[in-house]
Amino acid sequence: LTVVTASGEVIRTGTRARKSSAGYDLTRLLVGSEGTLGVITEVTLKLHPLPESVAAAICSFDDATAAVDTVIAIIQTGVPIARCELMDANAVIAVNRHDKLGLAEKPMLLMEFHGSAASVAEQAATVQELAADHGGTAFQWATTPEERTRLWTARHHAFLSGLQLRPGCRAVTTDCCVPISGLADAVTQALAEAEAAGLPHFIVGHVGDGNFHVAYLIDPALPQERETAERLNQQLVQRAIAAGGTCTGEHGIGLHKQGFLVDEAGEGAVAMMRQIKQALDPRNIMNPGKIFSW
Amino acid sequence: LTVVTASGEVIRTGTRARKSSAGYDLTRLLVGSEGTLGVITEVTLKLHPLPESVAAAICSFDDATAAVDTVIAIIQTGVPIARCELMDANAVIAVNRHDKLGLAEKPMLLMEFHGSAASVAEQAATVQELAADHGGTAFQWATTPEERTRLWTARHHAFLSGLQLRPGCRAVTTDCCVPISGLADAVTQALAEAEAAGLPHFIVGHVGDGNFHVAYLIDPALPQERETAERLNQQLVQRAIAAGGTCTGEHGIGLHKQGFLVDEAGEGAVAMMRQIKQALDPRNIMNPGKIFSW
Repeated sequence: LTVVTASGEVIRTGTRARKSSAGYDLTRLLVGSEGTLGVITEVTLKLHPLPESVAAAICSFDDATAAVDTVIAIIQTGVPIARCELMDANAVIAVNRHDKLGLAEKPMLLMEFHGSAASVAEQAATVQELAADHGGTAFQWATTPEERTRLWTARHHAFLSGLQLRPGCRAVTTDCCVPISGLADAVTQALAEAEAAGLPHFIVGHVGDGNFHVAYLIDPALPQERETAERLNQQLVQRAIAAGGTCTGEHGIGLHKQGFLVDEAGEGAVAMMRQIKQALDPRNIMNPGKIFSW
Repeated sequence: LTVVTASGEVIRTGTRARKSSAGYDLTRLLVGSEGTLGVITEVTLKLHPLPESVAAAICSFDDATAAVDTVIAIIQTGVPIARCELMDANAVIAVNRHDKLGLAEKPMLLMEFHGSAASVAEQAATVQELAADHGGTAFQWATTPEERTRLWTARHHAFLSGLQLRPGCRAVTTDCCVPISGLADAVTQALAEAEAAGLPHFIVGHVGDGNFHVAYLIDPALPQERETAERLNQQLVQRAIAAGGTCTGEHGIGLHKQGFLVDEAGEGAVAMMRQIKQALDPRNIMNPGKIFSW
């Protein structure tokens, strides 16, 4: 990283070597600090070679639990799956309407495999077998770029199609991430609570990571709907933290999740973060007020 | 991590989720901080499933450059090699003497491949081809645990066997890590300088990472030999930093490399590390004096 610090200095962190134990890991301290410790002006990324072969696959399940249990089995079997996404039945209904895809309107996994041609074929065969063990149907796989893009269309259009389930709505989106072993419970309970509350909703999840997003579709003119969505999110996050997970897999803390951060990390860890902030930005000029109170 | 801070508090960092963006990444700040920010009392690790199949391979080369060029080709081809170690001719001579292994006394790569049986066989075949392109000979590979252990014996005994090349010696060990593209030059120059200086030496390297260790075998009774080893290390580190690498891939800064850290990271980055230290340990009671001066 190239970073402008609060005192106006320009520093560089890290090297081009694959590993280093030279001093504190400033790169990882700054990444995810939400601009509170400095302004990142340049990022150098490590590139990986393009895989020799890429395959995509989709598969439908009777319920989200069966889909997630399949993911757990895939990971426990050691299949080096490259991408693994979940869409719930509502998300599939939304993309069917939007793109006329004709998919079975049931929870669906979308997957990608990287490697040599033989290894990719073997991974897809193993996954098809594991999916069948969990009642998976309509397994399709594809290796050409055009066919892969077609299979992934549903996922790429999920969010914007999902919003069309309720024209004029706003989405309140959750971002918890749980240990893979707790993922089926977390998704199932989130779905049940959303149903019970009567709010339109859909789920997309980066389930290979244990991270999923529930989008509650609220009418911005009805404050009680926002309150219901906040309550559902509160319950979902508290369960995720109790299961050893986190309130945010990728969206960050910002203003809204500062209370969750204390619940998750504890007062002592948040105090340590605050001491670092106060030492590096004593005038509080870098994105003030974010992550924790001063 | 469970960590006791300088103020005597016990904090926990991280969660059991695979990813999180909740606040500063205290785990990675503390890992590699050499005890200067707190005492780590518990570490929870992520486990990976045992691979279905494991294969080991060794291969000899006419010079270290050919061996390292093979590694570069393996990585650029995208072979997901699990372990990749280099021993120079002196290290092979040492283990032959110690263990009567009868290996060709030339630079050698030792490798390990993980995956399904088919994928492992395919990786080994690709690597054998790439090694042959670079003049590799005496390629052997093994899949049973006993045979794999036999192939890896040389690497496991390298350091202690190496010390026996000069009975009564002390080893001064380097730890630089360079971008893979600069690895052949770094190893070749290190060997040439050690030869020219006339100090007994050997090299082992985690070459898949670009990290290698030269051990200079000095007579502790001869101060000029220690000075020569220090000078060689100085040259090697300056070249590594100029090539975009680091002075330490895994051993850390401690007392001895504090000057190198400033050369590598710059005054501004080291000042930022010092500010963090002073904020979190104002009485300087946590491993004082290490990494940088107070």
